[in-house]
Amino acid sequence: MTSQIKITLPQFPKGFHLITTEIEKKLKDYNHTGLAHIFIQHTSAGLAINENADPTVRHDLNLAFDKLAPENMPFYKHTIEGPDDMPAHIKSILVGPSVTVPVENGKMLLGTWQGIYLCEFREYGGARKIIITLI
Amino acid sequence: MTSQIKITLPQFPKGFHLITTEIEKKLKDYNHTGLAHIFIQHTSAGLAINENADPTVRHDLNLAFDKLAPENMPFYKHTIEGPDDMPAHIKSILVGPSVTVPVENGKMLLGTWQGIYLCEFREYGGARKIIITLI
Amino acid sequence: MTSQIKITLPQFPKGFHLITTEIEKKLKDYNHTGLAHIFIQHTSAGLAINENADPTVRHDLNLAFDKLAPENMPFYKHTIEGPDDMPAHIKSILVGPSVTVPVENGKMLLGTWQGIYLCEFREYGGARKIIITLI
Repeated sequence: MTSQIKITLPQFPKGFHLITTEIEKKLKDYNHTGLAHIFIQHTSAGLAINENADPTVRHDLNLAFDKLAPENMPFYKHTIEGPDDMPAHIKSILVGPSVTVPVENGKMLLGTWQGIYLCEFREYGGARKIIITLI
Repeated sequence: MTSQIKITLPQFPKGFHLITTEIEKKLKDYNHTGLAHIFIQHTSAGLAINENADPTVRHDLNLAFDKLAPENMPFYKHTIEGPDDMPAHIKSILVGPSVTVPVENGKMLLGTWQGIYLCEFREYGGARKIIITLI
Repeated sequence: MTSQIKITLPQFPKGFHLITTEIEKKLKDYNHTGLAHIFIQHTSAGLAINENADPTVRHDLNLAFDKLAPENMPFYKHTIEGPDDMPAHIKSILVGPSVTVPVENGKMLLGTWQGIYLCEFREYGGARKIIITLI
């Protein structure tokens, strides 16, 4: 039995944001055991799993990704949507559009320090659509 | 019920290439709801999801990945298969060998701008084998 | 039917390490066809798939990742756990916490040159907990 749950996250500023609670709330209604596949339907944002406690990790990740995919590289041809757009595509490929997490009786089996991140790579990315598939 | 579909893609030149249509064609025969896991059986190519419209995104990604994993780094020991080989392994780790996409009645639930990419990191990578698992 | 198998890997030194055999041993007890999702419950280590033969690939990957996420970047705020900690978080996001592999009759359908890597990004990361979900 497959369940597909569609959610829309409000606009977040550029950066890495914890959304574990939003996902947990949705899973509570299903007493599922198996996997939760969480997928973002966008090409300039991603999903990842990392440190859920110290917010300086998320601060540093934002700046580290700016170094990995800088704005205004002289070879960029895809520039019409603003200087943050092409870096956002590169960063999205690096983190990926989905995370898959083992689930037991409706509870994600995350490690002690693991949280789920929305990785917003645009300055004004707008609302972001996510599909959770339980399998 | 699990279905596993094996496909072979012809050789593509080094770069990022849209293969959404090839995958869609294979899914058409199955009225599947759940997930499609698409896996490449190689270590110097990868699969990713990104912008399906403007080809300059794929052009820029190719050059951005050349910056992330340059050829001829002085510390490389794995050099016998040519200057594009070790960078191809690094890039493959960065994008990953698989993408997983939610599917409803045989149709992938991709966002408006999302397409599936073959990321070919060798100059002459040859044909590439892919396994699609429907679950 | 879902099976979840929990394993603990002993401490490995910083670097990329083949753990294909450890995973294969666990799958042998299940005559599974479908997917194996392998998930690490940590934020400073990851899992990946790459070259299973020449060990120089793993040597070069280690140094290439040190270039991608250097220690002691002046903007790092998350420094209390040592110079290798923030780079470990960045590298973990880049490789991801899980790999998903097609499986047929208990055998992973890896390509000829593919092996499963534990990517240990801390100098002394300790034992690492992994959950394999068969689906």
